[in-house]
Amino acid sequence: MRHITINGITAEYLPVMDRGLHYGDGLFETIACIDNHIQFWDEHIERMRSGAERLYIDTSAIDHFSTDVNTMLAQHKISNCVIKLILTRGQGERGYLSPSPQHPTRIVILSDLPKYPDTNNTSGIDTCYCSHTISRNRNLAGIKHLNRLDNVLARNEWHDEYQEGLMLDENENIVEGTMSNVFVVKQKQLFTPLLDDCGIDGIIRSQVLSIAQKYDIDTFVTDITKSDMTEMDEIFICNSLIGIWPVKSLADKNYHVGDITKKISQALKKRMQAQ
Amino acid sequence: MRHITINGITAEYLPVMDRGLHYGDGLFETIACIDNHIQFWDEHIERMRSGAERLYIDTSAIDHFSTDVNTMLAQHKISNCVIKLILTRGQGERGYLSPSPQHPTRIVILSDLPKYPDTNNTSGIDTCYCSHTISRNRNLAGIKHLNRLDNVLARNEWHDEYQEGLMLDENENIVEGTMSNVFVVKQKQLFTPLLDDCGIDGIIRSQVLSIAQKYDIDTFVTDITKSDMTEMDEIFICNSLIGIWPVKSLADKNYHVGDITKKISQALKKRMQAQ
Repeated sequence: MRHITINGITAEYLPVMDRGLHYGDGLFETIACIDNHIQFWDEHIERMRSGAERLYIDTSAIDHFSTDVNTMLAQHKISNCVIKLILTRGQGERGYLSPSPQHPTRIVILSDLPKYPDTNNTSGIDTCYCSHTISRNRNLAGIKHLNRLDNVLARNEWHDEYQEGLMLDENENIVEGTMSNVFVVKQKQLFTPLLDDCGIDGIIRSQVLSIAQKYDIDTFVTDITKSDMTEMDEIFICNSLIGIWPVKSLADKNYHVGDITKKISQALKKRMQAQ
Repeated sequence: MRHITINGITAEYLPVMDRGLHYGDGLFETIACIDNHIQFWDEHIERMRSGAERLYIDTSAIDHFSTDVNTMLAQHKISNCVIKLILTRGQGERGYLSPSPQHPTRIVILSDLPKYPDTNNTSGIDTCYCSHTISRNRNLAGIKHLNRLDNVLARNEWHDEYQEGLMLDENENIVEGTMSNVFVVKQKQLFTPLLDDCGIDGIIRSQVLSIAQKYDIDTFVTDITKSDMTEMDEIFICNSLIGIWPVKSLADKNYHVGDITKKISQALKKRMQAQ
């Protein structure tokens, strides 16, 4: 199943001159719709708005995504799907200078929810380290922009042997998974990488941090190196489609699904059901 | 004037699911066609092939660009234009994993040559430093890929006040211009930034290095910091559309159009006429 609209109109094709193609000049969001409930819509829209402001993309188009999506879900009678939103700076002439005024392009793509084994959520997944390091740039860090060659190259280092790979920066700090954020637990304390220089500031990452605060779990957003990982008691990854997956192996070391991972995972499920 | 083909067929629109849009998962080349002579075609195609190999994009489509371009030039009776080639990894399903097999998308866009004042080539241009720093990533350095948000953000820091801006890395090393490579001359010696960690390995940059070698000009490909720039006797920038533009001012310092810049510029013009 796939349904696409561009600027609210059913379409399969995008003008070749769109700057999304030429420069990756835009943003995206990947959102789960489960049993007619769109998960964390406001948070996704807010992140896109914040990203657009940082990239100086006109934000006025963002308000129309809600109508686009709700119209499409109703028209096609869809209750469960992935909603991908793309906002680009729109079409342009040759050259990097932005058109003025901008006419951003708004794309909505509905597709089937991915099917993963239930055991990913319960007994956990196998992961590796990606050898492709992630680009460092404070000005782009955190933004879910369309310049995603790092993720493409890192993800293509393996096929089915692992369910996720962890990406490092050039100093061997853990940054994130190719499609997820990463948390680790050591002696009942929760840690997640600082994303000041690279990485995507995930919506579920924020939810996990908020859940940890609510449960009074000591939490640190800080540098975590590859060598730190051997000392960790629990590892889990998260994103908007998978929720939380515990990590049962990373490279050659095994981990167990611990109490803090379980506690946060259950709390996240409740929040998702309440959406 | 604009003419577009996708995979050899006249088109204005690209499938929305192309990975060029979703991830900037592809490469491009910008080539000048002057008086029926396509400038440095072999070098551009070779760079694209090398980039595709580094990104693990199937290179077999690259061989077809020549037929695409020559057919379009003949059909539309065009003698002078910009030829933009884009090669993407093609369409894909959701997710970063490459489709297997890949069916890369080949896009050719012909448009008018930009019109710049002749004085840009003779008396030089005004330039600034961009405050947007360039992303560091050894794995992507040199490649003319579609992840160009750095260039977009840097270029949009000014409008008509300057003709180019120089981009720095986070350690204040000069990397390149937003659309060009940079050379400097000090005491008759030529310097250009090392591009091991970021920047695009320009076709005209290679030509300049080769001309300098032919003329026995001492040349160093090395780190050049922002503070080094005040000591330089000459600065020039280059790319495939402009050739060489001397820099007559950078930020608040003026420079003159020196002998080495003139000598290399003349030699480059001869090479372009011989294409």
